[in-house]
Amino acid sequence: MMQKDYELIIAGAGPSGLTSGLYAGRAGIKSIILEKSFNGGQVLLTDSIENFPGFAGGIQTYTLIENITRQVKDVAVEIKQEEIVHIVCDSEYKVIKTNNSEYRTKSLIIATGAVPKAIGVKGEKELARKGVSYCAVCDGALFRKKITAVVGGGDRALEEALYLSKLADKVYLIHRRDKFRAVKVIQDRVLADKKIEVIYNTNIIEIQGTNKLEQLVLENVIDQQIKTLKCDAVFIAIGLIPNTNFVSDIVKVDSNGFILTDDNFQTNISGVFASGDCRKNNFKQVITACAEGAIAANSAKAYLDTFLQ
Amino acid sequence: MMQKDYELIIAGAGPSGLTSGLYAGRAGIKSIILEKSFNGGQVLLTDSIENFPGFAGGIQTYTLIENITRQVKDVAVEIKQEEIVHIVCDSEYKVIKTNNSEYRTKSLIIATGAVPKAIGVKGEKELARKGVSYCAVCDGALFRKKITAVVGGGDRALEEALYLSKLADKVYLIHRRDKFRAVKVIQDRVLADKKIEVIYNTNIIEIQGTNKLEQLVLENVIDQQIKTLKCDAVFIAIGLIPNTNFVSDIVKVDSNGFILTDDNFQTNISGVFASGDCRKNNFKQVITACAEGAIAANSAKAYLDTFLQ
Repeated sequence: MMQKDYELIIAGAGPSGLTSGLYAGRAGIKSIILEKSFNGGQVLLTDSIENFPGFAGGIQTYTLIENITRQVKDVAVEIKQEEIVHIVCDSEYKVIKTNNSEYRTKSLIIATGAVPKAIGVKGEKELARKGVSYCAVCDGALFRKKITAVVGGGDRALEEALYLSKLADKVYLIHRRDKFRAVKVIQDRVLADKKIEVIYNTNIIEIQGTNKLEQLVLENVIDQQIKTLKCDAVFIAIGLIPNTNFVSDIVKVDSNGFILTDDNFQTNISGVFASGDCRKNNFKQVITACAEGAIAANSAKAYLDTFLQ
Repeated sequence: MMQKDYELIIAGAGPSGLTSGLYAGRAGIKSIILEKSFNGGQVLLTDSIENFPGFAGGIQTYTLIENITRQVKDVAVEIKQEEIVHIVCDSEYKVIKTNNSEYRTKSLIIATGAVPKAIGVKGEKELARKGVSYCAVCDGALFRKKITAVVGGGDRALEEALYLSKLADKVYLIHRRDKFRAVKVIQDRVLADKKIEVIYNTNIIEIQGTNKLEQLVLENVIDQQIKTLKCDAVFIAIGLIPNTNFVSDIVKVDSNGFILTDDNFQTNISGVFASGDCRKNNFKQVITACAEGAIAANSAKAYLDTFLQ
């Protein structure tokens, strides 16, 4: 198989990878974006976004991604649906093998994002897509006028609950602590929503049902009391796992798998950069993922300017 | 005069300060933005922007700022046209004096941006607004069908030249080095533009004219030869000076006046943060300024969560 040569390969077509593509294309860098599934990634788990500056009244995440994709194509950067299976970084040229091709590149930006974390209890895997979900926007409509539950205490958990309250008859919001981490405006909306009932200090210890979810087994973390809660669906929103398994033997990651970089977003390997949700940083938002993509592309450009000179 | 109390004061209503306002408002933080002139700042020196992700085909900078301003107002954060004249940070509450009011705040984000640098030659001040300009978008239309010049070698200088070539009969692009720093796509456009003539390795040493600009005195940096160049306007785009004079005796700045911060954008003073063009960082773009605003607001929120507890 003939290797295809690039100056820059970008792994991942979420907001961060796409913005890297936009900046790299404008800089005249021969670049390609490789995406294993669909453009957008994790951001599409929410249907609209209100805190991306520039869109008064909010914007549909699908539209936002479509717009950025158009910008990338306008600067002649190709996006291919290929999954990276192996990376070799033992020379100045990095070799990237995908499920159906092989590339040689001078630089690489890893922008593969993150996926929702599982609770890890009995019934969770067995009843996946039979009532257990990680995305209200994707699956919420299946539970119109039903009884639903959401697990978590951060922004996304509360946003899931608000989303579901427009569809379902009831939304239990189950949180292991006695207060939420979510931003205040969202907390206020949740607490004012008559369909949402908050269950604090509680863990799910089992998800039960035959063929479809029937009930959750809950444990109160203070008095260890066990209860069951009948519901048709549970939406799990308790955190993120970075999509970095495929590079975690090559680049340095923290104990949770997030990629460690310097201030220019370069990893421990020269010419390999990371940006967005898969990178260890303090704040994960769509706007910060985009900015990190721009910065990573700028750093890759500076690296390429000195390459083999 | 009675002091008005806030949890957060944001100095500056450019992309960064506005995005801080958006995030602070959503977080339920009692905030106000103080802006000494008009919303937008430095970004309005360009008429449209192509590399802000989310706007295929580009967006007018005026529209972008108007949209973000609406988002800020939608979360009930006020923007006031007041100039900060004095800041006292000797207790946990910071006192902010403006030209017509006095505020007390628990935290402060400095997002006052930067302004264009002057060349510092004879005639520059004297002929300002009489042919000497720092903004083609603002003043270019005055020189329709005229002979113009641009000074600089970065993105903004080349963008100014391209902008002027649509209006003027001729654009000289004067650069002190033998190649440009600007991004390649822009270089390509400049070099392909028949109205633009590049003059490399050259400094302007004087700007001459009575009542209006008549000619530039140029010095070749290689052979020190002196020439004059007749033109009607010169647009200066050689770099930035941060708007940090009003705080440079309080917060640590680098030798160019850019504010030094930690990874959470906190300055050397607890509860005082900086973001955007006035902060020392590696890459200054509208998208990165916005992201920095979001991060600074998030850091301010974390600071406020622990305030006086």
